[in-house]
Amino acid sequence: MTTPDYGAAFLHWRNQAKSWHSYTRHRFVESLADGSLPKDAFLHYLKQDYVFLIHFSRAWALAIVKADTLSEMTTAAATVNALVNEEMKLHIGICAEAGIDIQALEAEEERPENLAYTRYVLEAGYSGDLLDLLAALGPCVFGYGEIGLYTHKNCSSENYREWIDTYAGTEYQDLCKSVGELLDNALRRRLGDDFSKTPRFVQLSERFATATRLEVGFWEMGLHP
Amino acid sequence: MTTPDYGAAFLHWRNQAKSWHSYTRHRFVESLADGSLPKDAFLHYLKQDYVFLIHFSRAWALAIVKADTLSEMTTAAATVNALVNEEMKLHIGICAEAGIDIQALEAEEERPENLAYTRYVLEAGYSGDLLDLLAALGPCVFGYGEIGLYTHKNCSSENYREWIDTYAGTEYQDLCKSVGELLDNALRRRLGDDFSKTPRFVQLSERFATATRLEVGFWEMGLHP
Amino acid sequence: MTTPDYGAAFLHWRNQAKSWHSYTRHRFVESLADGSLPKDAFLHYLKQDYVFLIHFSRAWALAIVKADTLSEMTTAAATVNALVNEEMKLHIGICAEAGIDIQALEAEEERPENLAYTRYVLEAGYSGDLLDLLAALGPCVFGYGEIGLYTHKNCSSENYREWIDTYAGTEYQDLCKSVGELLDNALRRRLGDDFSKTPRFVQLSERFATATRLEVGFWEMGLHP
Amino acid sequence: MTTPDYGAAFLHWRNQAKSWHSYTRHRFVESLADGSLPKDAFLHYLKQDYVFLIHFSRAWALAIVKADTLSEMTTAAATVNALVNEEMKLHIGICAEAGIDIQALEAEEERPENLAYTRYVLEAGYSGDLLDLLAALGPCVFGYGEIGLYTHKNCSSENYREWIDTYAGTEYQDLCKSVGELLDNALRRRLGDDFSKTPRFVQLSERFATATRLEVGFWEMGLHP
Repeated sequence: MTTPDYGAAFLHWRNQAKSWHSYTRHRFVESLADGSLPKDAFLHYLKQDYVFLIHFSRAWALAIVKADTLSEMTTAAATVNALVNEEMKLHIGICAEAGIDIQALEAEEERPENLAYTRYVLEAGYSGDLLDLLAALGPCVFGYGEIGLYTHKNCSSENYREWIDTYAGTEYQDLCKSVGELLDNALRRRLGDDFSKTPRFVQLSERFATATRLEVGFWEMGLHP
Repeated sequence: MTTPDYGAAFLHWRNQAKSWHSYTRHRFVESLADGSLPKDAFLHYLKQDYVFLIHFSRAWALAIVKADTLSEMTTAAATVNALVNEEMKLHIGICAEAGIDIQALEAEEERPENLAYTRYVLEAGYSGDLLDLLAALGPCVFGYGEIGLYTHKNCSSENYREWIDTYAGTEYQDLCKSVGELLDNALRRRLGDDFSKTPRFVQLSERFATATRLEVGFWEMGLHP
Repeated sequence: MTTPDYGAAFLHWRNQAKSWHSYTRHRFVESLADGSLPKDAFLHYLKQDYVFLIHFSRAWALAIVKADTLSEMTTAAATVNALVNEEMKLHIGICAEAGIDIQALEAEEERPENLAYTRYVLEAGYSGDLLDLLAALGPCVFGYGEIGLYTHKNCSSENYREWIDTYAGTEYQDLCKSVGELLDNALRRRLGDDFSKTPRFVQLSERFATATRLEVGFWEMGLHP
Repeated sequence: MTTPDYGAAFLHWRNQAKSWHSYTRHRFVESLADGSLPKDAFLHYLKQDYVFLIHFSRAWALAIVKADTLSEMTTAAATVNALVNEEMKLHIGICAEAGIDIQALEAEEERPENLAYTRYVLEAGYSGDLLDLLAALGPCVFGYGEIGLYTHKNCSSENYREWIDTYAGTEYQDLCKSVGELLDNALRRRLGDDFSKTPRFVQLSERFATATRLEVGFWEMGLHP
């Protein structure tokens, strides 16, 4: 499978991140594709992912605060909107179908692997600038895009079709492209056209790699309800 | 004129803020009502207010980051949305009619009085929690609501009718009420039903008073293009 | 063993934190006391703890930024000073004796359990106010104090005597007391004398409990070099 | 008078900042040198400067939080220490001699010009990274160094000799050099040896220029007790 085209920075960072393969081809991912993932692991994952989405939305809201241009602001604001008003409602819906009500979601104790990833992203954003924040957000946004395409291509079961179609679908793939553009433009605006030759770019690449490592932990946690 | 009903905290803080009257009955305000405000002062104010809105939107985005509950998040996200996708477009429209294009708006140098107020709000939010942020945002949100009602009641000229109707109108008045509820609920959630008896409430009241002082400076600046 | 006297808030929160016993009587702790901890586990822990100390110092620096009074500032500044100019140098010294040079320390990859705890603390501080930050810092400061006293009392081996004496010693115990005072005063200043009856206090107690959970993970990680 | 040597970035930014001359040759500065500054203006300035120093110390503490390397951390921590434990005590001392006790200092209402500058610096630091923070802190650190040398050279009165000698003295001049090195190194570490050719450097230069503008406002405020 070819690497999806989510822009120049993604391509660089993806290739530098040692754990990218472990993340995007994780046993959790493979078992979504072949349908072998136990139902309780999936539901456990969904509940933790609900908690994750709250902090992920907060991180995207921080991107609005950290934006330098109106165009950066509006892209980030649109993402917050999509997360808070669509993605979270979708999640609540899928969970409800599975018999997990909103109270159960709210009461879910956040696992350490979840805490590790979300707080790493938020702290990167608070301590650094918009670039640090985007580099830490990247593995989630782009990784789910790549995983969506990969599982869609290798799907041999109907069990997790809805989940797979969501991330392989046009809407999510377009989001990945628009975040890729936001990222490349933000880099260009601050570091120039040769952004990939600055030390800053290497440091951001390490942020991306660390966040990727933490995504592996998240899948791992998903396997252990 | 009776004090508008934007909730319990507003009522307390408004009555404690020494500069509330200087702010809501400022010469700039009176001259909007009677139409005597020179056009160039109004346009100067609009341009500065555009810059203000950018930072004000960022501050409301910070409220999403600082929220503790989904309900706090969604109210703050709706406000960001209203600001970025409606209020700012409205502003761009009014300015365009007056011959000020978007380039001129973007190029506008931020006045110290503008810097003082917006950075005070953002810093209050960053250094404190959601309550500090809301207390610093309060004078702008609620003050414009009160000013809208006041100028509407005392309006003796058509010159600034559009501006007056915007803030006196149902949509903006509803926003004030919903922010008032957000604030009272946020206080209750953290400080209990007797929130007004805690030292924290007094400290927040001081934040509100300082932000009110800075609003007076903003009107003052408005009079001097 | 009686609970050490580090103030009123500590006593409350300690008793509410489900994982407090798992943390302060962890197998890692017991094996420091009886000397059975494998040397390589100890060195692994020391290297991770070096990385931890960097972020812990940053968190205490954030407490200076978030302070409301000069007295809060100076206590936090003294702690940063002790951490950056003493504790870290001590650490570098102990590691050097064990053949781990500063380059090895700097090159140490941060473990997820370490990331989880430090970023949780920093994010709590950024998103909340000084109280949130202190509640998240508490389990480390006070827990090491209690563990110092506990291991000192139950020490049956010379293997880790130096470590034990550091945390059982007067200097560290005095630090715990002074942080306890800072915390109680900060609570009183914001929430009043009945601070323990506010909802805020319960929310802070949950922060303390979550940070305690993450400390258990840190010991667990320590056992697995 | 030749420009003081506080490093490469300072030289660039100083030459780009339109208000640099208005700031460093302000009437307040000239009247310190020739002794014509009214005593009450000086005392008014000292009281506001005490409030300023609190927020300035907080901003330097934020630099510790935002540091990427141990060396950046220790330089910033040394500055916080110098500010909190020396500069502020010195200030309290000079004020006490002039009959202004610590209670009066604490009760001093912060002027808008003071709020504007300190909150601008803190917000720049929170929203950006260490470079943004240092660019916003620069005009104060370096400007007082240049003003110290300038007033020392042109001093024709004993009235404000103590103040002048403090900033012209070796200790303060060394601080300027060490902050200049911190800044140049921080730029090099992130943007490479050709840091001055990146768009980021131009953006930082604008931050420096805005902070310089706000310093002019601070002197202006000083003249009006």
